[in-house]
Amino acid sequence: MNIKEYLKDRQELVNSYLLSYTETPIRPGALHDSMKYSLMAGGKRIRPILCIASHAACGGRESDILPQACAIELIHTYSLIHDDLPAMDDDDLRRGKPTNHMVFGEAMAILAGDALLTDAFRLFVRRGSFESGRLLLALEELASSAGIFGMVAGQAQDILSENADPDEDTIRFIHEHKTAALIKASVKIGALLSPADDETIRAMEEYGQNIGLAFQVVDDILDIVSTTEELGKPSGSDEARNKMTYPAVYGLEGSRRIAGELIDRAIEAVKNMEGDPAILTGIAEYLLTRTN
Amino acid sequence: MNIKEYLKDRQELVNSYLLSYTETPIRPGALHDSMKYSLMAGGKRIRPILCIASHAACGGRESDILPQACAIELIHTYSLIHDDLPAMDDDDLRRGKPTNHMVFGEAMAILAGDALLTDAFRLFVRRGSFESGRLLLALEELASSAGIFGMVAGQAQDILSENADPDEDTIRFIHEHKTAALIKASVKIGALLSPADDETIRAMEEYGQNIGLAFQVVDDILDIVSTTEELGKPSGSDEARNKMTYPAVYGLEGSRRIAGELIDRAIEAVKNMEGDPAILTGIAEYLLTRTN
Repeated sequence: MNIKEYLKDRQELVNSYLLSYTETPIRPGALHDSMKYSLMAGGKRIRPILCIASHAACGGRESDILPQACAIELIHTYSLIHDDLPAMDDDDLRRGKPTNHMVFGEAMAILAGDALLTDAFRLFVRRGSFESGRLLLALEELASSAGIFGMVAGQAQDILSENADPDEDTIRFIHEHKTAALIKASVKIGALLSPADDETIRAMEEYGQNIGLAFQVVDDILDIVSTTEELGKPSGSDEARNKMTYPAVYGLEGSRRIAGELIDRAIEAVKNMEGDPAILTGIAEYLLTRTN
Repeated sequence: MNIKEYLKDRQELVNSYLLSYTETPIRPGALHDSMKYSLMAGGKRIRPILCIASHAACGGRESDILPQACAIELIHTYSLIHDDLPAMDDDDLRRGKPTNHMVFGEAMAILAGDALLTDAFRLFVRRGSFESGRLLLALEELASSAGIFGMVAGQAQDILSENADPDEDTIRFIHEHKTAALIKASVKIGALLSPADDETIRAMEEYGQNIGLAFQVVDDILDIVSTTEELGKPSGSDEARNKMTYPAVYGLEGSRRIAGELIDRAIEAVKNMEGDPAILTGIAEYLLTRTN
């Protein structure tokens, strides 16, 4: 299977589920519009796709895991809205469009983020055929990786480290928490809700951890080597804001080498898994070579 | 049983659980400090107490429901931090202390709120002896009432209605969603996780809905008739900000009458419940006569 076609197909699957999700009326309309604006702004949908791919690789059915996969995208979307706020990264542009608070104002942007985060957990517990105890375990993984043991902790450290001297421990902490944690959780949740045994779940965790970290290292590299047009957000913004990045610590070539090693390790982790690792391997390779 | 003593005892129970909750180390420390600051700022803990009281009235054990009750307090605390932000209500004082963003800055205040909201769901799924399917049902109730079908929707409408002409439909929507929804959920969750039958759960919902709305009507009244010192936050701030309130629509006397009727209805709802309604009745009466 061609990996770009696979990604495009699953992106459409996710988009269509999210579109129907946004059709539930919400009062007030301004809150609804603000949520929809960011949710349907056209991201890569890499987290829900990873959740679906991991679930399928472990013997699950794609359609079963759509609510949980899309709940993760709600959480990712909330994090982008809050990260872009003036008090945080103060970004005007995201995916080639004005950021949420530029369109709806700061108050509505904060509330749209809060609403997406909260509703992600409501969406996540749409049971379908999953066993309740298993779903609770998966939900715990989601809350851990999105909160104080993951994404929020990473974003806090990122903000606190602006203008600080780059160091290896801090940048690894930031990237592992801010980005890798939720990506790893996406992969792990797909496996947790599949028939996979414990050994396979551990292999998927190892895969998720490595592609998650690689994803952010590649992001750091793209912020330097790509144009604003390619990225859909201002290139060079990390340096302008004195952000701690992998290139700031390891240089551009060093960062490329690290990203390559992480992807190798991810592919190695699932090579002998029970089930079919072809798609997972394809996604890992794609993440290394992507240009936006 | 003296209701004030009951409330004080349960407040201590909740405080002691929350204190031990805050002892889990979180990196970065600034995020941890910011979360602890607001969580331990000394609120009435009325939501977790209602959850405990409802659970006990329906035949459950108080200690069993502490994680879920305290998870609700995490959500309440996050909502206060975000509501106080400059882009929202722009409040400097809360419970007699500087608001979170005055101490930790806006970025850390936003993140502390996000962290508390996310971690509430992790705390909520601490299973204890509860049946998994039941816990998922209770979690769905929590996410609905805190998010797009409850609190966040109410806060959004509240912000959008500043300076608008007061009208009955809008003020009822705001109060039912912004305040009553999470209070009703606190009561309902206590019942859902108890041995209560469906009829009892419906009675508890009716009770929760009525005391929830009464709670906010009394809040509106206190904002007018109390001093800043009594409230621990600036009195008269609703009028200063042109907020839509019950007194603005029904006058002070009309609002007092409505609050009294709501409390009567709450007490009526649980009068003949299976189990012991004495504490629930006592709390309802206390909510009407409280001074802060």
